[in-house]
Amino acid sequence: MINVNDAFRTLGQNYLFSEVAARLKSFSAKHPEARIIRMDIGDVTRPIPEAALTAMHAAVDEMASTDTFHGYGPEQGYSFLREAIATHDYRSRGLEIDADDIFISDGAKSDIGNLGDILPPQAVIALPDPGYPVYYDANAINGRTRFVSLNATPENGFVPSLPQERPDVIYMCFPNNPTGAALTREGLQQWVDYALANDVLIVYDSAYEAFVRTPGTVRSVYEAAGAERCAIEVRSFSKTAGFTGLRCGYTVVPTQLKGIFSDGTETEIRRLWNRRQCTKFNGASYIIQRGAAALYSPEGRRQTKELADVYLRNAAIIRSGLSDIGIKAYGGVDSPYIWAQCPAGLSSWETFDFLLNEAGVSTTPGSGFGNKGEGFLRLTAFNTEANTREAMTRLASLRK
Amino acid sequence: MINVNDAFRTLGQNYLFSEVAARLKSFSAKHPEARIIRMDIGDVTRPIPEAALTAMHAAVDEMASTDTFHGYGPEQGYSFLREAIATHDYRSRGLEIDADDIFISDGAKSDIGNLGDILPPQAVIALPDPGYPVYYDANAINGRTRFVSLNATPENGFVPSLPQERPDVIYMCFPNNPTGAALTREGLQQWVDYALANDVLIVYDSAYEAFVRTPGTVRSVYEAAGAERCAIEVRSFSKTAGFTGLRCGYTVVPTQLKGIFSDGTETEIRRLWNRRQCTKFNGASYIIQRGAAALYSPEGRRQTKELADVYLRNAAIIRSGLSDIGIKAYGGVDSPYIWAQCPAGLSSWETFDFLLNEAGVSTTPGSGFGNKGEGFLRLTAFNTEANTREAMTRLASLRK
Repeated sequence: MINVNDAFRTLGQNYLFSEVAARLKSFSAKHPEARIIRMDIGDVTRPIPEAALTAMHAAVDEMASTDTFHGYGPEQGYSFLREAIATHDYRSRGLEIDADDIFISDGAKSDIGNLGDILPPQAVIALPDPGYPVYYDANAINGRTRFVSLNATPENGFVPSLPQERPDVIYMCFPNNPTGAALTREGLQQWVDYALANDVLIVYDSAYEAFVRTPGTVRSVYEAAGAERCAIEVRSFSKTAGFTGLRCGYTVVPTQLKGIFSDGTETEIRRLWNRRQCTKFNGASYIIQRGAAALYSPEGRRQTKELADVYLRNAAIIRSGLSDIGIKAYGGVDSPYIWAQCPAGLSSWETFDFLLNEAGVSTTPGSGFGNKGEGFLRLTAFNTEANTREAMTRLASLRK
Repeated sequence: MINVNDAFRTLGQNYLFSEVAARLKSFSAKHPEARIIRMDIGDVTRPIPEAALTAMHAAVDEMASTDTFHGYGPEQGYSFLREAIATHDYRSRGLEIDADDIFISDGAKSDIGNLGDILPPQAVIALPDPGYPVYYDANAINGRTRFVSLNATPENGFVPSLPQERPDVIYMCFPNNPTGAALTREGLQQWVDYALANDVLIVYDSAYEAFVRTPGTVRSVYEAAGAERCAIEVRSFSKTAGFTGLRCGYTVVPTQLKGIFSDGTETEIRRLWNRRQCTKFNGASYIIQRGAAALYSPEGRRQTKELADVYLRNAAIIRSGLSDIGIKAYGGVDSPYIWAQCPAGLSSWETFDFLLNEAGVSTTPGSGFGNKGEGFLRLTAFNTEANTREAMTRLASLRK
């Protein structure tokens, strides 16, 4: 028989969301009449902003004629999109990020998974607990076995303490998935200072930055002084503009970010990521890149902000709905995620099953995000307002 | 400074096509008036088939309304596309491949690069020389250091002999990139029998199968008896239907393909690939998958075949053009690639520079594909017919 990568033995049998989907399928088979309200997977429900739709129609039309046809694009992404991102997501906010440091991809999940390719095989990885399962799983597939947990609990406001022993890489995510916690600029600076002092790489997942509304709350890791020398930032159009089904994201690897091989040779980390992408990726779809670029037009920016506002209103509905029935919950202010405490004595999966069976409301069990997620559920604000209200009504009636 | 993956030190400074692009840029800067005819990178030039354009417009429209919006799709791809592929690319040709064994991706380059994730870290990899550089580079990034060359030369008709010592994995590509060589069913069966007898995994790159016209020439590895127990097949819509800028491909991992962990536990390799894709990929774009599915409609299939026929006519023009001026060339029959011998005494890069400087014709140096590619050039048939004819006229005039 054919030899395969042993690392897959160490992974859970199912990816978290596949297990949730399997339980929903089984529930629906038994209760075909039930209308499940999904607050589990972080999938959006609102249509794509009109500016992007118009741009994608035009891009499809370009593909119809030899003169305007687009074949292979740059592996790094088209300049029109890289420039728009540099201008609107960074420079307009006072952050000196160059278009050349921005790598367009088919999404943040791919980038987060693939970044392991440029890390040393034996790297010690510090991961938030709870955290997005891909941070661990992708590193485990790469054969890494040395992990350090950064615990996020109600006691520390879901912002972990600095690690006791130096890791090689720290994964951070703010606004956080799954806890919905946001970070202040001072809080971020501590991490960047630690990384700079200890030659640590920060992989900063900023997929939810579009939901930040509170002044002083961090949108980008580069808001901290010196971050361009220690941090890679991963972003996505998925939640910002509803691109979950279209597939587009980007990763920033600043030229100032330097790495070192084990023989002492220095290198730009940007060069390694560029080589990885040129070798194992062929660029994001032209049509989708045109759609993403249109989000930066004046109409595109207005439509995108409106989209996030809809979901933030849902988040507020969930927060007050849970509060009304006495459930302790966190997040949901600068974030589309609400992190709710399970009733005393019930585990995450028990509460998941209870809410599914008794209220037809699907959530994500916190334990799927790590040990410290046990006893919590993640609820997302990505459903429609009507469904969100209906879900809160159903939960309230359970309390009666 | 931050520690990075040493494997990047072993890679060439530039990916082959980046180096070609750099030389073209430098030439154009010196000769802004020159009209370069590109026969280097395997990029297509004909518009996307109308059936796919219509389907993509409709898919963009679906994204405009909450009722028809598509968010996250299945990581494995949509059933509508997997079923169409199973039916038209396999079952209609008598090959028993199930839709569940087909994984849709953003392209063959990604899949070929990412398949390394499921192989054992210490695997011995057998690679065709010359061959597509990604086979080596992707495995090197994964930290593999044990490679065996399978030499493809004029003497063996560019079909290597079976390896002397057993590797763990063999990469094969027919119709071949870069030599244009095709494989007979009997020739393929030898490799499959060898793989089955020696517990070897074959990664079969069949990105160019749409160009096969000669009866008895292999389109799919599964034409060989038992291949479903030893082979993964990677395919692409890039060359078949001009999707290089749209990004869609697929990989077949049959359920019958079994692997073994080092502790002796058996597993379906399909399960490992599924886990890899669910962890580090979020599915191909819905719009592009709709475009790809439309290629299997009656009009889509007609338009797709016409597209390949255009390029095959160009290939014939190149073959006869080179023959007329006494240049020995191979391939270009069931393939869009022509593999031409350099003039005696000139290396691949010397000939590349000569043709670029004297004729404004850009090719790909054979040495970029491996040691056995030295002394050859790859020419592609993907330009327009007019440009292809013009290139042959320019080459002929060099001979005068």
